[in-house]
Amino acid sequence: MTQSSREVHLVDRPDGMPKKEHFRVVETEIPEVGSGQVLVQNLFMSVDPAMRPRLASQTPLNTAIEGGAVGRIVQSNHTAFREGDYVRSLNGFREYFLSDGSNINALDPDGMPLSAYLGVLGINGLTAYGGLLVTGALQDGENVFVSAAAGAVGSIAVQIAKIKKCFVIGSAGSDEKCAWLRNELRADVAINYHRQKLRQALKEAAPKGIDVYFENVGGEHLNAALPRMNPLGRIPVCGMISAYNNFGSISEPVTTLSNLIYNRVTMRGFVVYEFESLRQQFLSDMKGWIRNGKVKYRETILDGIEQAPAALIGLFSGLNTGKMLVRFAS
Amino acid sequence: MTQSSREVHLVDRPDGMPKKEHFRVVETEIPEVGSGQVLVQNLFMSVDPAMRPRLASQTPLNTAIEGGAVGRIVQSNHTAFREGDYVRSLNGFREYFLSDGSNINALDPDGMPLSAYLGVLGINGLTAYGGLLVTGALQDGENVFVSAAAGAVGSIAVQIAKIKKCFVIGSAGSDEKCAWLRNELRADVAINYHRQKLRQALKEAAPKGIDVYFENVGGEHLNAALPRMNPLGRIPVCGMISAYNNFGSISEPVTTLSNLIYNRVTMRGFVVYEFESLRQQFLSDMKGWIRNGKVKYRETILDGIEQAPAALIGLFSGLNTGKMLVRFAS
Repeated sequence: MTQSSREVHLVDRPDGMPKKEHFRVVETEIPEVGSGQVLVQNLFMSVDPAMRPRLASQTPLNTAIEGGAVGRIVQSNHTAFREGDYVRSLNGFREYFLSDGSNINALDPDGMPLSAYLGVLGINGLTAYGGLLVTGALQDGENVFVSAAAGAVGSIAVQIAKIKKCFVIGSAGSDEKCAWLRNELRADVAINYHRQKLRQALKEAAPKGIDVYFENVGGEHLNAALPRMNPLGRIPVCGMISAYNNFGSISEPVTTLSNLIYNRVTMRGFVVYEFESLRQQFLSDMKGWIRNGKVKYRETILDGIEQAPAALIGLFSGLNTGKMLVRFAS
Repeated sequence: MTQSSREVHLVDRPDGMPKKEHFRVVETEIPEVGSGQVLVQNLFMSVDPAMRPRLASQTPLNTAIEGGAVGRIVQSNHTAFREGDYVRSLNGFREYFLSDGSNINALDPDGMPLSAYLGVLGINGLTAYGGLLVTGALQDGENVFVSAAAGAVGSIAVQIAKIKKCFVIGSAGSDEKCAWLRNELRADVAINYHRQKLRQALKEAAPKGIDVYFENVGGEHLNAALPRMNPLGRIPVCGMISAYNNFGSISEPVTTLSNLIYNRVTMRGFVVYEFESLRQQFLSDMKGWIRNGKVKYRETILDGIEQAPAALIGLFSGLNTGKMLVRFAS
């Protein structure tokens, strides 16, 4: 029996901001489940800023876009998977898909909400954990600055730094997000970069300088942070969201890089797959922190695959607090 | 008996390019040599781009400027130094000075010209050696780009990279310098950044990408290099000479930093004093390379302490090829 499904295609490449007309929701039929195959129904899919630069060239046109998803096996002809099993995959942006098992990973919810495995217990959590502790080589009690601190990755980085007894400054784009950072996530200082002058605000917020700047934004955030970096400071570069909607990934101008020299500061780009070997340790730590209330997270959930383009576009207009998700079914 | 001496003071802080009127040559009298003291006569002093940013705030006004120098003991009341011994110090910009031995280091010329100990066998050589091999973690056979490659540090970095069997691209600001890079220093490609479009020229020169970019310039050089960096590439940041004459060390805008992310590139600022523990190994290697002709160097020498301001200003107008020096006596 075939299964009707919908999927989201990229039909045109955005130069600047992605718009709805760059995407199309397409009806399709999934063939019958063959031998050694499973049929997966996606339940949630992840929407991430890092998807944006890929739209400019890497993402193929007129086929379902890739992206993290969690789903449930609804039919199995595969010995390793049973009906009802949960799996994670990179096959987002579609309601159903067939798999031979090579591109899905079994997922044990372990009492946690499924959606968490796309965010705090998934790519975003592991990104914050590895970026801060490995790339950033964070030491207990250091001075930390996190940009886009109310975002899916930034909000976890803030909380991990607090768990490590650090002094933590976060930036976000609204008073509501700043209040959440201070009151719920225990950030020591929250800077609203839309209302405050970032360079001056950061100078005042960091009287002891910055040892680790967890970089999500680039541009003016980096201009403000570089002169504040302490000797042997580290800047793990997770993303530069200020660059993603400019053609060719041209970022806002950075003019303070010579501050790297005398303080011997390290900037290093990283991607989450570097930390795969840490996943079990990460999951164990993070579940513990969530259970004892030391890590909180927020999700912004839109319902229905037809909302996927709006969710992606909304990332760049501040629509979300915390993780942006699309729910297909529950 | 007192010794008359001349020294160069900074009398006003340059906003942009330093000019002669920011400096003054001052006559002074050196007191008699006390017990435990030596009188040093400087023979050569070093002029370095890194002096420029210090003029903006750190260098005290109306006192002799600091800078590397080699000199000779002309009178000694100190048990560790004899008349005629050579020493190196940071007491440049003056003809004579007294020392209690704590701020001078004995120097054995070992058959090499004294001036070399301010350049290829001194701060510039150790900077290139440590920056490339330690900070840049250079591996044999990698693809290397060196900016300001005809400069005192860059020219040594080019040659060390060639000794390590690397493919080496250098940039310089004149055809004559580029010819020297190709013909004498064995650079594989030399780019004249005044005549060629840097981004396009570097793209064509580096078909296999860049593993290590030895950064001396910043700005447009960095914009050109970042998109060419290979996965896990390294950018040891030695200097950003493009920034030094702008007020407040504001550098030319860099807009391609998001290239750090997916290729997991590391940029790290460094300063030569990090490599002090390597000095003996460095001297042994570098003397060997000079003796067997694998490292060549050029010096631009101006005569007389009154030329020190012109030498410093000339660094930023391309006056020198290789090391810029002022000779006081010989």
